Amino acid sequence: MKKTLAEIAALVDGTVTGPAGIEVTGVTNIDDAGPGDITFAVPPHLDKAAQCSAAAVIIPDTVETFSKPAIRVANPRMAFTTLLILFTPRHNVSPGVHPTAVVSHTARLGANVAVMAHTVIDDNASIGDNTVIYPHTYIGRDVIVGHDTLIYPNVTVREDCHIGSRVIIHSGAVIGSDGFGFITVNGKHRKVPQVGNVIIEDDVEIGANTCLDRATTGSTVVKQGTKIDNLVHLAHNVVVGENCYLVAQTGIAGSAKIGNNVTFAGQSGSAGHLTIGDNCVFAARSAPINDIPPNSFYAGFPARPHKEWLRSEAAIGRLPELIKKIRDLERRLGELENK
Amino acid sequence: MKKTLAEIAALVDGTVTGPAGIEVTGVTNIDDAGPGDITFAVPPHLDKAAQCSAAAVIIPDTVETFSKPAIRVANPRMAFTTLLILFTPRHNVSPGVHPTAVVSHTARLGANVAVMAHTVIDDNASIGDNTVIYPHTYIGRDVIVGHDTLIYPNVTVREDCHIGSRVIIHSGAVIGSDGFGFITVNGKHRKVPQVGNVIIEDDVEIGANTCLDRATTGSTVVKQGTKIDNLVHLAHNVVVGENCYLVAQTGIAGSAKIGNNVTFAGQSGSAGHLTIGDNCVFAARSAPINDIPPNSFYAGFPARPHKEWLRSEAAIGRLPELIKKIRDLERRLGELENK
Amino acid sequence: MKKTLAEIAALVDGTVTGPAGIEVTGVTNIDDAGPGDITFAVPPHLDKAAQCSAAAVIIPDTVETFSKPAIRVANPRMAFTTLLILFTPRHNVSPGVHPTAVVSHTARLGANVAVMAHTVIDDNASIGDNTVIYPHTYIGRDVIVGHDTLIYPNVTVREDCHIGSRVIIHSGAVIGSDGFGFITVNGKHRKVPQVGNVIIEDDVEIGANTCLDRATTGSTVVKQGTKIDNLVHLAHNVVVGENCYLVAQTGIAGSAKIGNNVTFAGQSGSAGHLTIGDNCVFAARSAPINDIPPNSFYAGFPARPHKEWLRSEAAIGRLPELIKKIRDLERRLGELENK
Repeated sequence: MKKTLAEIAALVDGTVTGPAGIEVTGVTNIDDAGPGDITFAVPPHLDKAAQCSAAAVIIPDTVETFSKPAIRVANPRMAFTTLLILFTPRHNVSPGVHPTAVVSHTARLGANVAVMAHTVIDDNASIGDNTVIYPHTYIGRDVIVGHDTLIYPNVTVREDCHIGSRVIIHSGAVIGSDGFGFITVNGKHRKVPQVGNVIIEDDVEIGANTCLDRATTGSTVVKQGTKIDNLVHLAHNVVVGENCYLVAQTGIAGSAKIGNNVTFAGQSGSAGHLTIGDNCVFAARSAPINDIPPNSFYAGFPARPHKEWLRSEAAIGRLPELIKKIRDLERRLGELENK
Repeated sequence: MKKTLAEIAALVDGTVTGPAGIEVTGVTNIDDAGPGDITFAVPPHLDKAAQCSAAAVIIPDTVETFSKPAIRVANPRMAFTTLLILFTPRHNVSPGVHPTAVVSHTARLGANVAVMAHTVIDDNASIGDNTVIYPHTYIGRDVIVGHDTLIYPNVTVREDCHIGSRVIIHSGAVIGSDGFGFITVNGKHRKVPQVGNVIIEDDVEIGANTCLDRATTGSTVVKQGTKIDNLVHLAHNVVVGENCYLVAQTGIAGSAKIGNNVTFAGQSGSAGHLTIGDNCVFAARSAPINDIPPNSFYAGFPARPHKEWLRSEAAIGRLPELIKKIRDLERRLGELENK
Repeated sequence: MKKTLAEIAALVDGTVTGPAGIEVTGVTNIDDAGPGDITFAVPPHLDKAAQCSAAAVIIPDTVETFSKPAIRVANPRMAFTTLLILFTPRHNVSPGVHPTAVVSHTARLGANVAVMAHTVIDDNASIGDNTVIYPHTYIGRDVIVGHDTLIYPNVTVREDCHIGSRVIIHSGAVIGSDGFGFITVNGKHRKVPQVGNVIIEDDVEIGANTCLDRATTGSTVVKQGTKIDNLVHLAHNVVVGENCYLVAQTGIAGSAKIGNNVTFAGQSGSAGHLTIGDNCVFAARSAPINDIPPNSFYAGFPARPHKEWLRSEAAIGRLPELIKKIRDLERRLGELENK
């Protein structure tokens, strides 16, 4: 792959500063960029980018002066994404069922499906067109997987779960493990059957070693366009809305209902049986324990409005000083009282 | 499966209000229940249940008036569990060893064992009667698994570990990985061999992608009836007592000894080398760093008695107000002093 | 294996107290030691060890009186490690490729490699001499694995990643899953291709079900000698220095740069795009959100110097008392004002 700056500018709707005929053969970050590469920069990284080895830099069109060949665009990150896709095309996977795969004769495979070595597809499962399943993945009975979905190695999808189209499931993820439901009788925990399933809608991404438990009855649901990172836990009967972000190591307790466009930052969580409104953001390590209205920005545990949390944190930092002040007040007051 | 309310009432030791001949064909939650289903409700969900589409509702026998056909019982959740088991019988697994499974000729398999596709059972391992092992599971050498145990896909049980009877191990769990033990010599970390094992007693459940490390020497132990959720970490030489709950993403550090009937709620943890008494409860995200006496309810980090934690949290919320009060006191005191 | 105390003392550079001809056949911890075993003890466990059933105890050479046969050494833990290695030799793995393994004809295997049942090694992957790969592990195309490395069952190593020599990767670990990178266009999250890789240098250990995401471009790096525990998450483009400890359930956000000899204790974490100096220690459950200078000991969230954190925690514990004091001051001041 080789492109001139002029060609790239046309692709990303940008304007070239410097020799438009410069050719680039790769696209990477500022630190790794060599003389054949193009990179991108936004403030505060513009100075660093100006001194890097790259042939050219994609920068915001609001930047006035820049000392290297550049392509100015409205959104450098987006242009960079476009070039990443262009310069590193998806690895070609040959369709077909590997001879070591074990596919039930009652399973249905769409056109151009790739089922790799040692994969197991159980009875009545259905796999849509162009879907790719890597080695050591287990697809349970009666599972439905949509088209153009990508399932990496060592994934488990238990019986009756539904996976949409253009979904990506990373290695080690477990879809449809039993919810954690017990009833205690005379001090012993008796298992409540978990007979529901998991529904993952279209365009969802599920991170490595993430666990999505099946519902007790009904469905645990991840709605379309939501992206879930690694080592996340969704308990039984959780519903996550559309276009959410659940960042790594987040855990959502049972029956929580999460709106659309909600972000849970890393290592955050949520209590169960509550409702989170649309467009909420939970800071890293926060966790709500009550319903949260739409458009809220919360932090801390128990989660409170981010501004309140900042104020409390600042106040905690001042506590030793406050203790001194109180001691001082007591002394001065005592002196006045003894006058 | 089709049952009249009269038949169901007999099964769950309840009394019918409304037409006892009504037939139901399914059992599910309030939201998903249709006109052929029975559901259950306890306060505060009785009003919602009274308006749902279900044919009938299982309610507490203390409820006086209820506008739908109902079955009154002492414990609705228990009755619901009984019906879930009745209406959704366990999927029938055919016993036998799949031709793609690799079973050592020195391994011993009990009667009616199911060893599914691509499973590997290593030398001298022993599997009890009626145990079911799903695909891609690895059972190491000298492992002993009891009878009527259920091991889901992609599980690893390393050498020398013991798994009891009626145990359930969910997908991706790792039993017997090395404990995290090193000794630092001249700035380099040298591995301390981890030559112990893991013992999981009868009736234990282990969640998806949960990790139980083997002991350095001796055993890491999970005693009978304890239920462990997803993504939990037990370090080397931990001992968890009987009938405990370890909820998702909890982590217990090395050599901690946990009593019976202890609950660690979600995302909680414990420091190592300490002793937790029987019947303790640790709230979500809490973690003790010292020994805890029996029957304690703790919260926060470092964990303290729940009432203390509540008081501290309330006080933190009042901090900005306290800062104002102190400022006010200083002003007023200054005025008095200058009189 | 049978050794006299005299022979053991020679091996660990110690001196015997008691009959030097006593023979021991095993080495284990104080609680599990029987009359044929040797164990070790350091304060405060010396009294317990003096009363245990072991034949002899390895103790610090600074201990003056001890009532059992003993071997005095400069570092008992180190001597114990030496004996653990001696008495429990590594299980012998036969080299060779199991007939059920699927190894691409373009993959290169070194001498004495063991590739166990159902393992998959994809195109152009290269495995160094004496490396052992357990069942159900997937090695992606163009992956390079060094010599004398040990990869346990159910591991995934995605395409293009590099694994060093003498590395240990525990079961369920995922190396090279996509970084969590998206760009939001009109409310929908579009995937940013993650075209970098993961580089794991020599002598690194990776815990069970730990996830190391590949870089967006360039590499996510774990430098030599670093030890990572179970269920840890490293996001894209993280760089972890040499000889670090990352204890269980820690999560490091994207592009964080961590120095050498850094310890993150259990359930800790780090914000992204920051720099952690050499020799830092982060207490359990802490997480820095800014750059941290070398040689720092931090605690809490947001992480602050450990002493400050201790002071804040103590002050929080005194808050209810402070509230009372302020109320008292207000009353007394009011009385003075009204005089």
